[in-house]
Amino acid sequence: MTRPLSVLVLNGPNLNLLGAREPEIYGPMTLPAINARLLALAAELVAVDLEFLQSNHEGALVDAIQAGDERGVAGAILNPGGLTHSSISLHDAIKAVHYPVVEVHLSNLHRREEWRQRSYISAAAVGTVMGLGWRGYEMALRALVGLLREADNPIGDGSC
Amino acid sequence: MTRPLSVLVLNGPNLNLLGAREPEIYGPMTLPAINARLLALAAELVAVDLEFLQSNHEGALVDAIQAGDERGVAGAILNPGGLTHSSISLHDAIKAVHYPVVEVHLSNLHRREEWRQRSYISAAAVGTVMGLGWRGYEMALRALVGLLREADNPIGDGSC
Amino acid sequence: MTRPLSVLVLNGPNLNLLGAREPEIYGPMTLPAINARLLALAAELVAVDLEFLQSNHEGALVDAIQAGDERGVAGAILNPGGLTHSSISLHDAIKAVHYPVVEVHLSNLHRREEWRQRSYISAAAVGTVMGLGWRGYEMALRALVGLLREADNPIGDGSC
Amino acid sequence: MTRPLSVLVLNGPNLNLLGAREPEIYGPMTLPAINARLLALAAELVAVDLEFLQSNHEGALVDAIQAGDERGVAGAILNPGGLTHSSISLHDAIKAVHYPVVEVHLSNLHRREEWRQRSYISAAAVGTVMGLGWRGYEMALRALVGLLREADNPIGDGSC
Amino acid sequence: MTRPLSVLVLNGPNLNLLGAREPEIYGPMTLPAINARLLALAAELVAVDLEFLQSNHEGALVDAIQAGDERGVAGAILNPGGLTHSSISLHDAIKAVHYPVVEVHLSNLHRREEWRQRSYISAAAVGTVMGLGWRGYEMALRALVGLLREADNPIGDGSC
Amino acid sequence: MTRPLSVLVLNGPNLNLLGAREPEIYGPMTLPAINARLLALAAELVAVDLEFLQSNHEGALVDAIQAGDERGVAGAILNPGGLTHSSISLHDAIKAVHYPVVEVHLSNLHRREEWRQRSYISAAAVGTVMGLGWRGYEMALRALVGLLREADNPIGDGSC
Amino acid sequence: MTRPLSVLVLNGPNLNLLGAREPEIYGPMTLPAINARLLALAAELVAVDLEFLQSNHEGALVDAIQAGDERGVAGAILNPGGLTHSSISLHDAIKAVHYPVVEVHLSNLHRREEWRQRSYISAAAVGTVMGLGWRGYEMALRALVGLLREADNPIGDGSC
Amino acid sequence: MTRPLSVLVLNGPNLNLLGAREPEIYGPMTLPAINARLLALAAELVAVDLEFLQSNHEGALVDAIQAGDERGVAGAILNPGGLTHSSISLHDAIKAVHYPVVEVHLSNLHRREEWRQRSYISAAAVGTVMGLGWRGYEMALRALVGLLREADNPIGDGSC
Amino acid sequence: MTRPLSVLVLNGPNLNLLGAREPEIYGPMTLPAINARLLALAAELVAVDLEFLQSNHEGALVDAIQAGDERGVAGAILNPGGLTHSSISLHDAIKAVHYPVVEVHLSNLHRREEWRQRSYISAAAVGTVMGLGWRGYEMALRALVGLLREADNPIGDGSC
Amino acid sequence: MTRPLSVLVLNGPNLNLLGAREPEIYGPMTLPAINARLLALAAELVAVDLEFLQSNHEGALVDAIQAGDERGVAGAILNPGGLTHSSISLHDAIKAVHYPVVEVHLSNLHRREEWRQRSYISAAAVGTVMGLGWRGYEMALRALVGLLREADNPIGDGSC
Amino acid sequence: MTRPLSVLVLNGPNLNLLGAREPEIYGPMTLPAINARLLALAAELVAVDLEFLQSNHEGALVDAIQAGDERGVAGAILNPGGLTHSSISLHDAIKAVHYPVVEVHLSNLHRREEWRQRSYISAAAVGTVMGLGWRGYEMALRALVGLLREADNPIGDGSC
Amino acid sequence: MTRPLSVLVLNGPNLNLLGAREPEIYGPMTLPAINARLLALAAELVAVDLEFLQSNHEGALVDAIQAGDERGVAGAILNPGGLTHSSISLHDAIKAVHYPVVEVHLSNLHRREEWRQRSYISAAAVGTVMGLGWRGYEMALRALVGLLREADNPIGDGSC
Repeated sequence: MTRPLSVLVLNGPNLNLLGAREPEIYGPMTLPAINARLLALAAELVAVDLEFLQSNHEGALVDAIQAGDERGVAGAILNPGGLTHSSISLHDAIKAVHYPVVEVHLSNLHRREEWRQRSYISAAAVGTVMGLGWRGYEMALRALVGLLREADNPIGDGSC
Repeated sequence: MTRPLSVLVLNGPNLNLLGAREPEIYGPMTLPAINARLLALAAELVAVDLEFLQSNHEGALVDAIQAGDERGVAGAILNPGGLTHSSISLHDAIKAVHYPVVEVHLSNLHRREEWRQRSYISAAAVGTVMGLGWRGYEMALRALVGLLREADNPIGDGSC
Repeated sequence: MTRPLSVLVLNGPNLNLLGAREPEIYGPMTLPAINARLLALAAELVAVDLEFLQSNHEGALVDAIQAGDERGVAGAILNPGGLTHSSISLHDAIKAVHYPVVEVHLSNLHRREEWRQRSYISAAAVGTVMGLGWRGYEMALRALVGLLREADNPIGDGSC
Repeated sequence: MTRPLSVLVLNGPNLNLLGAREPEIYGPMTLPAINARLLALAAELVAVDLEFLQSNHEGALVDAIQAGDERGVAGAILNPGGLTHSSISLHDAIKAVHYPVVEVHLSNLHRREEWRQRSYISAAAVGTVMGLGWRGYEMALRALVGLLREADNPIGDGSC
Repeated sequence: MTRPLSVLVLNGPNLNLLGAREPEIYGPMTLPAINARLLALAAELVAVDLEFLQSNHEGALVDAIQAGDERGVAGAILNPGGLTHSSISLHDAIKAVHYPVVEVHLSNLHRREEWRQRSYISAAAVGTVMGLGWRGYEMALRALVGLLREADNPIGDGSC
Repeated sequence: MTRPLSVLVLNGPNLNLLGAREPEIYGPMTLPAINARLLALAAELVAVDLEFLQSNHEGALVDAIQAGDERGVAGAILNPGGLTHSSISLHDAIKAVHYPVVEVHLSNLHRREEWRQRSYISAAAVGTVMGLGWRGYEMALRALVGLLREADNPIGDGSC
Repeated sequence: MTRPLSVLVLNGPNLNLLGAREPEIYGPMTLPAINARLLALAAELVAVDLEFLQSNHEGALVDAIQAGDERGVAGAILNPGGLTHSSISLHDAIKAVHYPVVEVHLSNLHRREEWRQRSYISAAAVGTVMGLGWRGYEMALRALVGLLREADNPIGDGSC
Repeated sequence: MTRPLSVLVLNGPNLNLLGAREPEIYGPMTLPAINARLLALAAELVAVDLEFLQSNHEGALVDAIQAGDERGVAGAILNPGGLTHSSISLHDAIKAVHYPVVEVHLSNLHRREEWRQRSYISAAAVGTVMGLGWRGYEMALRALVGLLREADNPIGDGSC
Repeated sequence: MTRPLSVLVLNGPNLNLLGAREPEIYGPMTLPAINARLLALAAELVAVDLEFLQSNHEGALVDAIQAGDERGVAGAILNPGGLTHSSISLHDAIKAVHYPVVEVHLSNLHRREEWRQRSYISAAAVGTVMGLGWRGYEMALRALVGLLREADNPIGDGSC
Repeated sequence: MTRPLSVLVLNGPNLNLLGAREPEIYGPMTLPAINARLLALAAELVAVDLEFLQSNHEGALVDAIQAGDERGVAGAILNPGGLTHSSISLHDAIKAVHYPVVEVHLSNLHRREEWRQRSYISAAAVGTVMGLGWRGYEMALRALVGLLREADNPIGDGSC
Repeated sequence: MTRPLSVLVLNGPNLNLLGAREPEIYGPMTLPAINARLLALAAELVAVDLEFLQSNHEGALVDAIQAGDERGVAGAILNPGGLTHSSISLHDAIKAVHYPVVEVHLSNLHRREEWRQRSYISAAAVGTVMGLGWRGYEMALRALVGLLREADNPIGDGSC
Repeated sequence: MTRPLSVLVLNGPNLNLLGAREPEIYGPMTLPAINARLLALAAELVAVDLEFLQSNHEGALVDAIQAGDERGVAGAILNPGGLTHSSISLHDAIKAVHYPVVEVHLSNLHRREEWRQRSYISAAAVGTVMGLGWRGYEMALRALVGLLREADNPIGDGSC
């Protein structure tokens, strides 16, 4: 408990563009601003270290997820962007590492094109937060830290 | 702002059985225990009133969602249980009322039968939290109150 | 002919909200206003009694359809709302009773989500009126009474 | 209002055979007889002119729909026969003209072969009447005239 | 063994109409008559108590299945009627309770509409009897009692 | 009535392996043991003769079903094993003969691979018993004899 | 029998090009040459009159089929060309007339693109001959005349 | 040319039952009677020898097709019965031998169950005759002999 | 080279309406205006003759494509309008003639209804230009003339 | 107008191999040769600057598209190669930038494997040129410059 | 180790024709020649006995697989030929026996008809070798013996 | 023969994790250990050089496959990991190079998630080895060298 929890915050293709343009759609919040909020929340939660990576390269994200395992990462938050719907390699990487990953999507994928409604990441992630904007990142961090600190309190995997 | 926010907490079929049995699957947390946690969180968030309903009847849930609009409800949290995958009436009711609804699922539906992966509720809800156990309810309440109090901070509805 | 025709007017989930809100979408006509028009038309058609039921409960609609048979109902108009696309029990109930049922939809389902384009009711109903707004109810009543009074004039069930 | 409404009554392939044979299936009503009934109803509705066309040629029906726009037609009734399920050109023509078209089918298509259950016309038409025999033509004319005369009374395009 | 086995006999929507009409299709046997036969068989099997419920409401059936668990029911026979093909809530309720449920259908669903061939109940029930008319209820009761009394004689779950 | 009923008991590919191995899956009951139970039940039912055939050859089963018609067989019980899902020839043979066939499966096919859920036999058989282990054979024999002896008591082919 | 049988020989879009070009694919036989062979066969069969029509217009073929009924045509041979896969109007016309139609295709449609494997004509035609080149026309004529002259010898509509 | 053509006449599962029963469906013509007609036609065509095989065993039919190649068979007629829709082995055997095979079906498969409309045999056969009853066998023999004797007259494999 | 190239410019159903109405969607350009632009471009390209046809009749377009072959047409540009998605006869006609056809669509079909995304014409055309408005016609003409004049410069039909 | 238009020319995986091998399939034109032609055309069009990138890495292409927006690129031509059918990240990047992208494919994708017929790029691109070989690049450049210089001349997005 | 390993080499329908004809497709290697190579390899591997069976009968192959278990067979190599895609009975037999089976295909099924790409055998076999010609048999034998002799060296069943 | 064969051994995403963890699933064999075995086998086969690459980047694998062609690589072994199911770029790269590629999978993909059962690589590879663990790599190397050294011994591409 004395050692801080190390948490990865991973963002996939095109998320670097967030907030910089089309604020009427994506909101005025840039990725750096979201990250700043997460840092503030991490401070509030005490003893949580964050590490950030955004990449447009699937391979770079897989590398980072794998490397996290070697460096003792405790958990990760991942918004896979457009890779959500095609990357089985990300799915496999999440399955291969020992720490839990929470999937985040800014928008509600079920209100969009049909081919955005299939996520290969959901089946590997411990859970998903979707459609709640930048708040979803905060919720994911809060839940992740909660899960890691109360390991004796199992997540329901039942019927509802 | 002086008037408290009124929030509905709706649970669908079979969720009354939660925690009472098979704790190794669903966790030891009963629905009353989850509700107690939500009451504690509401107190912490200040000026948030909660109202609870669990029903195995689709019609009773539709009635409650409609009635909420008349009584000035500010938002709702809904775990539709097995109705998730078949109830277009719940979808329509959510679309018809003025307040936002956040969908919650205890388990990660993408790790279960294929026919559990289609949600008619997601396309009507403002967002979805899935696979994070009883914590999902807390996250939903936190996000809902945040959204209601910062209406000028739009939810991203973009590409990621 | 001396005994009046008894006709059920059944409306399913969420149709009680009609006209009360979002008049730019649903039109300014409430369900009571539609019912009033139907009563006026029934008077004009002479010797037609109407009975009204709106419910958000599938079971209540099935009960009403069954009960109609025992009470000598001559026909029914049904707007099944969101149950259109999932209720095989309503289909079975219509098939089980002796009187004809005409299906009505205010909007043109073919211009909406794909999953609204499958109706389980159409295959049990004698006919369908769709996309003509509140007028559809009047048309359904007119056609139903016409059919009941001219039973020797068969409905075409041919190729067009 | 002093100028009569001009309404097209269009019938597609094989509808010229109506009533002439197999009266046990199609009923004893021929297409001329249906047209006569429509003329009587037009007289009753006052200031409604009808123009009739039956053709087995898709192109001829498209020509007629287009020509109607130039000649100031106010609306049309269309039973597309077998073209219902394949003619995107008819769909496009209806979309391209300024006047509303009501689709009519004598029989209930949902009780027939599966490939008769997809209509390309429904998504372009303002509404559909199906399964009510020759009465459907009368209902379509009545609804069309009603719509045209009360343009301030919008058709519901909502959820039910 | 001295305590009698308590068995629920549940029938879903429209099964109350059984035998009362259209005896050429459904047979002359009413639901009360089937229940009387089951009572006679229960007597013959010795120490078997039956409890009956028919409802057109999905929620009422879910309530009854849940309540059975609290009251020490030993097993149930369920003919879900039209809910067979859409009710995931019934599936979940059967999965949630401790006692076995045998599914019964009067008719052979494979000889009917394609959408009647998918059962959400079969995957939760211990077994299914279909197409053998009212006899299916007797067979289900016999098998259920046999299973409950010879728990050491496992049901094959193998390849045939 | 003085002449005994002759009943075929047919088992398809791999059913000869039943019980001989993997008793934890298939139960300890071998095919000869099941057949012995059926003989005992036949004696109890009085005047019922049984004839047994197990074969891994589709053609041999088709031959046997055809030959049964010539030899005056009164009915058959068939567990088609892996042929359930592909043999249209068995379907055709059952349709071609005059006596009723009851389909039996030891396991609940709906809990297994998706491609085991389609049965070509069900649509030709008079009824199906599934998921109730060796008891299913007894139930099938009992139902078959009941049907044959009370031919005036029609099997429901209705909606439930 | 003294009156000759009148038979239509109808060919759809692009069949006028037959043989005139690409003889390595379509064979060296032109449509006039096929028709000449049919005339010779008609002479051999005695008292058979042939009438020929080739058109690239669906409507013209529908007109011809309808007109045949009025003029006492006894049967028809139809190669619908590319309309095979889309024309429900031709299907309906064949169903509407009193005389039998035999469908002919020069090539084996099952060896070609997938979308050429669905024929809307087959389900209306009395039978189909496919993949046997110009010989198929002769076979169709021979079979048609055989059928018309031996009406007491029913066509099998059974299982094979 | 002095050496007679040897032609196999192969019939698959259940075709031995032809004509023996249900003459109102299958016609009064038995398989021996069809074979007798084929022998008469073979005599008329001069120098054509026929060999007959009916079997309910897929393997026996594959054996026979293979053996034909070794014995110098010139062509074959095959009604595969229920194997039409599942036997890739028959497809492969036809592809592997040097002589042409014509597929025959008594009934029009397009008017029957959907799963009877896929033929694995058609894609390997030189052509198909369907829906013309016992006449189809005669037509197939005539066409086969014609093809074999006029090998320089290619079968069209073009567009119609 | 001294003889000018003759090029057909074919437009299918509803394209005669282009520009005349709804200029905000289709642009202000009418079909005559597009044709005038093409004539100017043809002059610029030197020795290119254009011939124009617009028709709402599939048959008329097939006739024109066939006739072009006889009259020595060098190539064609075709916007098939709504026939794009259903006309196999147009596909066959393009395949049957000796000159190349370039398919043009004003709009981007992939942004429209799903059933507009399948083109039967693309598989027969030498290439497709889509979504570039009236410019697509110019591009098609330019490419067609380029192809015809540099026949030794093959079009890639490879992997990208 | 005084400032030149900056246009990106992007090629995806394997397009660097173009022309270097298999010239009988891909044509003799290498990617550098195509680029040279584009440079010549850019010169002819006056004041158009081109920048080239070929990469086998999806991420590198997404980076380049994003970077283009920052550097004031006016438009782009993109042949996505094998990424056409799977890259939602490219789709999103195109949607996220302010400049138009024209999609190019050398070959006609509709004549190839089925899974090459779905393009995720088409729905984001302003238009598509397909099947016209290296000419397609020239056409895309010409159209792109035309669009950029005549922004008041809207592209049709209508029905044809 | 002193007792030799007994290995079955099973070949399904039409594999007896291998190499005897069409050597340009199947290669010049006959089945006896492949078997001779396998015998040589068995000698090299020391203490491996082979037993061969080729049959066109599904039942005979099922019989052989079952019988192998009784006779102490250690493993099997199976090329199921055309039964690959339809035989659930072979799948079940492989699952029912105690020894491992390796599936072999001479050709690469993924380059052939779509319906050859589904194998029911793969899901029961321990592994598959495909597309490497007669070498596949040698590889299968080598791998099978390796697996049997090093049972402590588990086969990966993981993610790649 | 004097020049050694150069063989690439390519491993895709996450295969670097092999053996390092979860040995109960993937076996105790690491990727370096597999590579060491391949080096030993290469020595045994004489004059075979191996080159190894593992990457989580699709583009890096495509680059390597392309580069192999320039450097005179004789063949390759590829385990594409999670890219198996989505990478058309790898498919295209394999098709574009001159040397054969053998696909390897450690596990039996047919026993896993449905979306792992589609391989885009199989249709481009010369053959596939699946489900035989690390042995599959050895088998692939053996077969590849065999193929390369006996080029006159064609691989069967026939029916089995």
